[in-house]
Amino acid sequence: MPGEVPLVGRFAGRHVLAEFEGIEPALLDDPAFLKKTLADAVTEAGATVCEVVSHSFAPQGVTVLALLAESHASVHTYPEIGAVFVDVFTCGDRADPERAVALLAKLLGAGTVRMSTVERGES
Amino acid sequence: MPGEVPLVGRFAGRHVLAEFEGIEPALLDDPAFLKKTLADAVTEAGATVCEVVSHSFAPQGVTVLALLAESHASVHTYPEIGAVFVDVFTCGDRADPERAVALLAKLLGAGTVRMSTVERGES
Repeated sequence: MPGEVPLVGRFAGRHVLAEFEGIEPALLDDPAFLKKTLADAVTEAGATVCEVVSHSFAPQGVTVLALLAESHASVHTYPEIGAVFVDVFTCGDRADPERAVALLAKLLGAGTVRMSTVERGES
Repeated sequence: MPGEVPLVGRFAGRHVLAEFEGIEPALLDDPAFLKKTLADAVTEAGATVCEVVSHSFAPQGVTVLALLAESHASVHTYPEIGAVFVDVFTCGDRADPERAVALLAKLLGAGTVRMSTVERGES
């Protein structure tokens, strides 16, 4: 369409940085559950998952990274205090990173949620 | 040591969000170069790389995610305009995320660099 701005490929995106607390600790030391839950949340929010990797730390804690067609998402867990760091960064208009974070909070049963959004790249 | 605060395991970290421009486009479509360069930069800045994954997009562009013992780092490239989004998030005091971003800018030969740091979790 003449004059239409392409939605994919613009150097712009929204990055949501979040912390959740009050989560059942056992869930936060379960990499299979965390990988599926992060993938489900970002997919439901319109993103396309290319790959998900995880790493379990001793004595506890898991990091999950999701490589998205729209950028990336991550979860870093602290089972000992029922807390996680969450990032969802998406470019384009198809995926909604705030919705992904809200869905993830619900799926994890988070007691408290803090999130902030950073607009990145071209305005 | 009595009274000492453990440096690992605290729910706190520094997240550097950056954009680089003015980079040679061919470098930004080379996943092997980008994976090695991101790993080199974060390692030199004191982080420990657990795993690095990448994905190449059509018609151009690469995403690289590095899973770190201290959290994660990412690069999302736009060869068509010589630009990248960069994130380096680290917990603990051993790794310096600003230094990692500065090293990466140097290794990529970036013409312009914008970066901001977000303190996350417990202060």
